[in-house]
Amino acid sequence: MKLVYAIVQNKDANLLAKKFSENGIRATKLASTGGFLSEGNTTFIIGIADEKVADVMKVIKENCHQREEFVSPVVNSHAGELTQPVQIKVGGAIVFVTPVDEFRRF
Amino acid sequence: MKLVYAIVQNKDANLLAKKFSENGIRATKLASTGGFLSEGNTTFIIGIADEKVADVMKVIKENCHQREEFVSPVVNSHAGELTQPVQIKVGGAIVFVTPVDEFRRF
Amino acid sequence: MKLVYAIVQNKDANLLAKKFSENGIRATKLASTGGFLSEGNTTFIIGIADEKVADVMKVIKENCHQREEFVSPVVNSHAGELTQPVQIKVGGAIVFVTPVDEFRRF
Ligand code: NI
Ligand code: NI
Ligand code: NI
Repeated sequence: MKLVYAIVQNKDANLLAKKFSENGIRATKLASTGGFLSEGNTTFIIGIADEKVADVMKVIKENCHQREEFVSPVVNSHAGELTQPVQIKVGGAIVFVTPVDEFRRF
Repeated sequence: MKLVYAIVQNKDANLLAKKFSENGIRATKLASTGGFLSEGNTTFIIGIADEKVADVMKVIKENCHQREEFVSPVVNSHAGELTQPVQIKVGGAIVFVTPVDEFRRF
Repeated sequence: MKLVYAIVQNKDANLLAKKFSENGIRATKLASTGGFLSEGNTTFIIGIADEKVADVMKVIKENCHQREEFVSPVVNSHAGELTQPVQIKVGGAIVFVTPVDEFRRF
Protein backbone atom coordinates (compact mmCIF):
# COMPACT_ATOMS: atom_id res chain seq x y z
CA MET A 1 0.00 0.00 0.00
CA LYS A 2 1.18 3.51 -0.84
CA LEU A 3 -0.21 6.93 -0.11
CA VAL A 4 0.09 9.15 -3.19
CA TYR A 5 -0.11 12.95 -3.05
CA ALA A 6 -0.93 14.68 -6.30
CA ILE A 7 -0.93 18.47 -6.45
CA VAL A 8 -2.59 19.79 -9.62
CA GLN A 9 -4.02 23.04 -10.91
CA ASN A 10 -7.66 23.71 -9.99
CA LYS A 11 -8.53 23.87 -13.68
CA ASP A 12 -7.59 20.19 -14.08
CA ALA A 13 -9.00 18.96 -10.77
CA ASN A 14 -12.56 18.11 -11.80
CA LEU A 15 -11.54 16.19 -14.89
CA LEU A 16 -8.88 14.33 -12.90
CA ALA A 17 -11.40 13.37 -10.19
CA LYS A 18 -13.69 11.99 -12.93
CA LYS A 19 -10.86 10.00 -14.53
CA PHE A 20 -9.75 8.58 -11.17
CA SER A 21 -13.31 7.42 -10.60
CA GLU A 22 -13.60 5.87 -14.09
CA ASN A 23 -10.38 3.96 -13.43
CA GLY A 24 -11.48 2.66 -10.03
CA ILE A 25 -8.99 4.85 -8.16
CA ARG A 26 -10.36 6.20 -4.87
CA ALA A 27 -9.03 9.69 -4.32
CA THR A 28 -9.78 12.20 -1.58
CA LYS A 29 -9.60 15.86 -2.53
CA LEU A 30 -8.16 18.44 -0.15
CA ALA A 31 -8.51 22.17 -0.64
CA SER A 32 -5.12 23.77 -1.06
CA THR A 33 -3.51 26.94 -2.34
CA GLY A 34 -0.26 28.22 -3.70
CA GLY A 35 3.21 26.90 -3.78
CA PHE A 36 4.13 24.16 -6.13
CA LEU A 37 2.38 25.24 -9.30
CA SER A 38 1.18 28.84 -8.94
CA GLU A 39 -2.01 29.87 -7.19
CA GLY A 40 -5.10 27.72 -7.18
CA ASN A 41 -4.14 24.13 -6.55
CA THR A 42 -5.96 21.02 -5.46
CA THR A 43 -4.27 18.23 -3.55
CA PHE A 44 -5.49 14.66 -3.95
CA ILE A 45 -4.62 11.86 -1.51
CA ILE A 46 -4.84 8.36 -2.98
CA GLY A 47 -4.37 5.13 -1.05
CA ILE A 48 -3.36 2.48 -3.54
CA ALA A 49 -1.79 -0.95 -3.83
CA ASP A 50 1.92 -0.85 -4.79
CA GLU A 51 1.30 -2.50 -8.14
CA LYS A 52 -1.26 0.14 -9.14
CA VAL A 53 0.89 3.21 -8.52
CA ALA A 54 1.83 3.22 -12.22
CA ASP A 55 -1.87 3.39 -13.16
CA VAL A 56 -2.32 6.41 -10.93
CA MET A 57 0.70 8.09 -12.53
CA LYS A 58 -0.68 7.41 -16.00
CA VAL A 59 -4.07 8.99 -15.21
CA ILE A 60 -2.40 12.06 -13.69
CA LYS A 61 0.04 12.45 -16.57
CA GLU A 62 -2.65 12.12 -19.24
CA ASN A 63 -4.99 14.63 -17.65
CA CYS A 64 -2.79 17.19 -15.94
CA HIS A 65 0.58 17.37 -17.68
CA GLN A 66 1.94 20.82 -18.42
CA ARG A 67 1.01 22.01 -21.92
CA GLU A 68 0.69 25.18 -23.91
CA GLU A 69 -2.60 26.84 -24.71
CA PHE A 70 -3.39 29.80 -26.92
CA VAL A 71 -5.34 32.54 -25.20
CA SER A 72 -6.81 35.59 -26.92
CA PRO A 73 -5.93 38.57 -24.76
CA VAL A 74 -8.76 40.92 -23.86
CA VAL A 75 -7.98 44.32 -25.40
CA ASN A 76 -9.58 47.65 -25.96
CA SER A 77 -11.04 47.07 -29.40
CA HIS A 78 -12.11 50.67 -30.00
CA ALA A 79 -8.97 51.37 -31.90
CA GLY A 80 -9.51 48.34 -34.11
CA GLU A 81 -6.19 46.79 -33.11
CA LEU A 82 -5.40 43.33 -34.39
CA THR A 83 -4.80 40.99 -31.49
CA GLN A 84 -2.62 37.91 -31.55
CA PRO A 85 -3.46 34.86 -29.47
CA VAL A 86 -0.84 34.43 -26.77
CA GLN A 87 0.73 31.10 -25.88
CA ILE A 88 0.76 30.29 -22.15
CA LYS A 89 1.73 27.26 -20.07
CA VAL A 90 -1.08 25.59 -18.13
CA GLY A 91 -1.46 22.43 -16.07
CA GLY A 92 1.30 20.40 -14.54
CA ALA A 93 1.33 18.05 -11.60
CA ILE A 94 3.63 17.26 -8.69
CA VAL A 95 3.30 13.74 -7.33
CA PHE A 96 4.78 12.21 -4.17
CA VAL A 97 4.53 8.49 -3.44
CA THR A 98 4.93 7.75 0.26
CA PRO A 99 5.14 4.48 2.20
CA VAL A 100 2.33 3.13 4.39
CA ASP A 101 3.06 0.96 7.43
CA GLU A 102 -0.50 -0.10 8.11
CA PHE A 103 -3.86 0.21 6.42
CA ARG A 104 -7.22 -0.34 8.10
CA ARG A 105 -10.84 -0.10 7.07
CA PHE A 106 -13.64 0.07 9.64
CA MET B 1 6.38 8.55 15.89
CA LYS B 2 3.78 7.86 13.22
CA LEU B 3 1.55 10.11 11.14
CA VAL B 4 -1.94 8.64 10.93
CA TYR B 5 -4.47 9.68 8.26
CA ALA B 6 -8.10 8.94 9.04
CA ILE B 7 -10.76 9.63 6.43
CA VAL B 8 -14.27 9.55 7.89
CA GLN B 9 -17.75 10.70 6.96
CA ASN B 10 -18.61 14.28 7.88
CA LYS B 11 -21.48 13.03 10.01
CA ASP B 12 -19.00 11.28 12.34
CA ALA B 13 -16.31 13.98 12.31
CA ASN B 14 -17.45 16.14 15.22
CA LEU B 15 -17.97 13.22 17.58
CA LEU B 16 -14.61 11.76 16.57
CA ALA B 17 -12.83 15.08 17.20
CA LYS B 18 -14.40 15.16 20.67
CA LYS B 19 -13.35 11.58 21.43
CA PHE B 20 -9.80 12.20 20.22
CA SER B 21 -9.63 15.17 22.58
CA GLU B 22 -11.05 13.19 25.53
CA ASN B 23 -8.40 10.53 24.92
CA GLY B 24 -5.52 13.02 24.74
CA ILE B 25 -5.00 12.45 21.01
CA ARG B 26 -4.08 15.62 19.15
CA ALA B 27 -5.67 15.57 15.72
CA THR B 28 -5.70 18.18 12.98
CA LYS B 29 -8.77 18.28 10.75
CA LEU B 30 -8.48 18.94 7.02
CA ALA B 31 -11.44 19.74 4.79
CA SER B 32 -11.85 17.06 2.14
CA THR B 33 -14.39 15.72 -0.30
CA GLY B 34 -15.24 12.61 -2.20
CA GLY B 35 -13.45 9.47 -2.96
CA PHE B 36 -12.95 6.88 -0.32
CA LEU B 37 -16.34 6.83 1.33
CA SER B 38 -18.86 8.76 -0.78
CA GLU B 39 -19.29 12.52 -0.72
CA GLY B 40 -18.69 14.56 2.37
CA ASN B 41 -15.54 13.38 4.10
CA THR B 42 -13.23 14.81 6.69
CA THR B 43 -9.56 13.89 6.87
CA PHE B 44 -7.77 13.92 10.22
CA ILE B 45 -3.98 13.95 10.57
CA ILE B 46 -2.68 12.60 13.88
CA GLY B 47 0.95 12.61 14.98
CA ILE B 48 1.32 9.87 17.57
CA ALA B 49 3.90 7.73 19.35
CA ASP B 50 4.22 4.22 17.87
CA GLU B 51 2.88 2.55 21.00
CA LYS B 52 -0.31 4.64 20.92
CA VAL B 53 -1.36 3.86 17.34
CA ALA B 54 -3.62 1.09 18.66
CA ASP B 55 -5.42 3.62 20.89
CA VAL B 56 -6.06 5.84 17.86
CA MET B 57 -7.44 2.86 15.94
CA LYS B 58 -9.73 1.96 18.83
CA VAL B 59 -11.21 5.47 19.04
CA ILE B 60 -11.78 5.57 15.28
CA LYS B 61 -13.32 2.11 15.18
CA GLU B 62 -15.68 2.79 18.09
CA ASN B 63 -16.96 6.07 16.71
CA CYS B 64 -16.88 5.73 12.94
CA HIS B 65 -17.24 2.09 11.94
CA GLN B 66 -19.70 1.31 9.21
CA ARG B 67 -23.16 0.42 10.53
CA GLU B 68 -26.75 0.31 9.45
CA GLU B 69 -29.34 2.90 10.33
CA PHE B 70 -33.08 2.98 9.70
CA VAL B 71 -34.29 6.06 7.91
CA SER B 72 -37.92 7.00 7.34
CA PRO B 73 -38.23 8.07 3.73
CA VAL B 74 -39.96 11.37 3.08
CA VAL B 75 -43.11 10.65 1.05
CA ASN B 76 -46.21 12.38 -0.18
CA SER B 77 -48.55 11.63 2.71
CA HIS B 78 -51.73 12.97 1.01
CA ALA B 79 -52.65 9.52 -0.15
CA GLY B 80 -52.22 8.13 3.37
CA GLU B 81 -49.60 5.60 2.25
CA LEU B 82 -47.91 3.49 4.88
CA THR B 83 -44.15 4.05 4.77
CA GLN B 84 -41.52 1.59 5.88
CA PRO B 85 -38.24 2.73 7.44
CA VAL B 86 -35.37 1.96 5.09
CA GLN B 87 -32.09 0.45 6.21
CA ILE B 88 -28.97 2.25 4.92
CA LYS B 89 -25.25 1.95 5.55
CA VAL B 90 -23.56 4.93 7.20
CA GLY B 91 -20.15 5.68 8.62
CA GLY B 92 -16.97 3.84 7.90
CA ALA B 93 -13.35 4.92 8.10
CA ILE B 94 -10.18 4.46 6.08
CA VAL B 95 -6.96 4.73 8.07
CA PHE B 96 -3.35 4.93 6.86
CA VAL B 97 -0.42 4.76 9.27
CA THR B 98 2.73 6.29 7.77
CA PRO B 99 6.31 6.51 9.03
CA VAL B 100 7.91 9.70 10.34
CA ASP B 101 11.65 10.31 10.00
CA GLU B 102 11.83 13.36 12.21
CA PHE B 103 9.52 15.24 14.55
CA ARG B 104 10.10 18.77 15.82
CA ARG B 105 8.19 21.19 18.00
CA PHE B 106 9.05 24.89 18.05
CA MET C 1 13.24 13.80 -1.21
CA LYS C 2 11.13 14.32 1.92
CA LEU C 3 7.58 15.46 2.49
CA VAL C 4 7.42 17.88 5.40
CA TYR C 5 4.20 18.69 7.28
CA ALA C 6 4.19 21.91 9.24
CA ILE C 7 1.19 22.81 11.40
CA VAL C 8 1.25 26.42 12.53
CA GLN C 9 -1.15 28.99 13.96
CA ASN C 10 -3.20 30.92 11.42
CA LYS C 11 -1.71 34.16 12.72
CA ASP C 12 1.75 33.05 11.55
CA ALA C 13 0.68 31.40 8.28
CA ASN C 14 0.86 34.36 5.90
CA LEU C 15 4.29 35.47 7.07
CA LEU C 16 5.55 31.89 6.90
CA ALA C 17 4.24 31.47 3.34
CA LYS C 18 6.08 34.66 2.36
CA LYS C 19 9.33 33.50 3.99
CA PHE C 20 9.10 30.06 2.33
CA SER C 21 8.74 31.83 -1.01
CA GLU C 22 11.69 34.18 -0.34
CA ASN C 23 13.83 31.15 0.49
CA GLY C 24 12.86 29.21 -2.64
CA ILE C 25 10.83 26.65 -0.67
CA ARG C 26 7.69 25.54 -2.47
CA ALA C 27 4.93 24.96 0.05
CA THR C 28 1.30 24.02 -0.45
CA LYS C 29 -1.13 25.32 2.12
CA LEU C 30 -4.05 23.20 3.35
CA ALA C 31 -6.94 24.55 5.36
CA SER C 32 -7.06 22.89 8.77
CA THR C 33 -8.52 23.36 12.22
CA GLY C 34 -7.95 22.38 15.78
CA GLY C 35 -5.83 19.84 17.49
CA PHE C 36 -2.14 20.34 17.78
CA LEU C 37 -1.92 23.98 18.71
CA SER C 38 -5.36 25.27 19.70
CA GLU C 39 -8.00 26.42 17.26
CA GLY C 40 -7.15 28.02 13.95
CA ASN C 41 -4.28 26.20 12.34
CA THR C 42 -2.83 26.02 8.87
CA THR C 43 -1.04 22.95 7.56
CA PHE C 44 1.72 23.31 4.98
CA ILE C 45 3.02 20.43 2.86
CA ILE C 46 6.54 20.90 1.52
CA GLY C 47 8.31 18.55 -0.87
CA ILE C 48 12.03 19.11 -0.39
CA ALA C 49 15.43 17.53 -1.05
CA ASP C 50 16.88 15.75 1.99
CA GLU C 51 19.75 18.19 2.30
CA LYS C 52 17.37 21.18 2.49
CA VAL C 53 15.18 19.91 5.34
CA ALA C 54 17.31 21.90 7.79
CA ASP C 55 16.59 25.10 5.83
CA VAL C 56 12.87 24.44 6.07
CA MET C 57 13.18 23.89 9.83
CA LYS C 58 15.10 27.14 10.20
CA VAL C 59 12.45 29.18 8.39
CA ILE C 60 9.66 27.62 10.45
CA LYS C 61 11.50 28.09 13.74
CA GLU C 62 12.34 31.73 13.02
CA ASN C 63 8.84 32.69 12.04
CA CYS C 64 6.52 30.50 14.09
CA HIS C 65 8.21 29.50 17.34
CA GLN C 66 6.18 29.83 20.50
CA ARG C 67 6.72 33.17 22.21
CA GLU C 68 5.07 35.48 24.71
CA GLU C 69 3.19 38.61 23.79
CA PHE C 70 1.68 41.31 25.94
CA VAL C 71 -1.98 41.99 25.31
CA SER C 72 -3.97 44.82 26.84
CA PRO C 73 -7.24 43.35 28.06
CA VAL C 74 -10.42 45.15 27.04
CA VAL C 75 -12.12 46.44 30.18
CA ASN C 76 -14.93 48.69 31.22
CA SER C 77 -13.07 51.96 31.58
CA HIS C 78 -15.94 53.93 33.17
CA ALA C 79 -14.61 53.29 36.61
CA GLY C 80 -11.19 54.56 35.61
CA GLU C 81 -9.51 51.28 36.51
CA LEU C 82 -5.85 50.87 35.74
CA THR C 83 -5.35 47.89 33.43
CA GLN C 84 -2.24 45.79 33.22
CA PRO C 85 -1.11 44.23 29.94
CA VAL C 86 -1.39 40.46 30.14
CA GLN C 87 1.30 38.07 28.94
CA ILE C 88 0.05 35.23 26.70
CA LYS C 89 1.73 32.48 24.69
CA VAL C 90 1.29 32.64 20.91
CA GLY C 91 2.71 30.80 17.93
CA GLY C 92 4.38 27.43 17.93
CA ALA C 93 4.79 24.83 15.22
CA ILE C 94 4.62 21.06 14.94
CA VAL C 95 6.71 19.59 12.13
CA PHE C 96 6.78 16.03 10.75
CA VAL C 97 9.37 14.93 8.19
CA THR C 98 8.18 11.88 6.24
CA PRO C 99 9.92 9.69 3.66
CA VAL C 100 9.11 9.77 -0.06
CA ASP C 101 9.53 6.65 -2.23
CA GLU C 102 9.04 8.36 -5.57
CA PHE C 103 8.70 11.89 -6.87
CA ARG C 104 7.34 12.84 -10.29
CA ARG C 105 6.66 16.07 -12.11
CA PHE C 106 4.42 16.16 -15.18
NI1 NI D 1 -1.15 16.33 -23.93
NI1 NI E 1 -21.31 -0.01 16.63
NI1 NI F 1 11.70 34.96 18.62
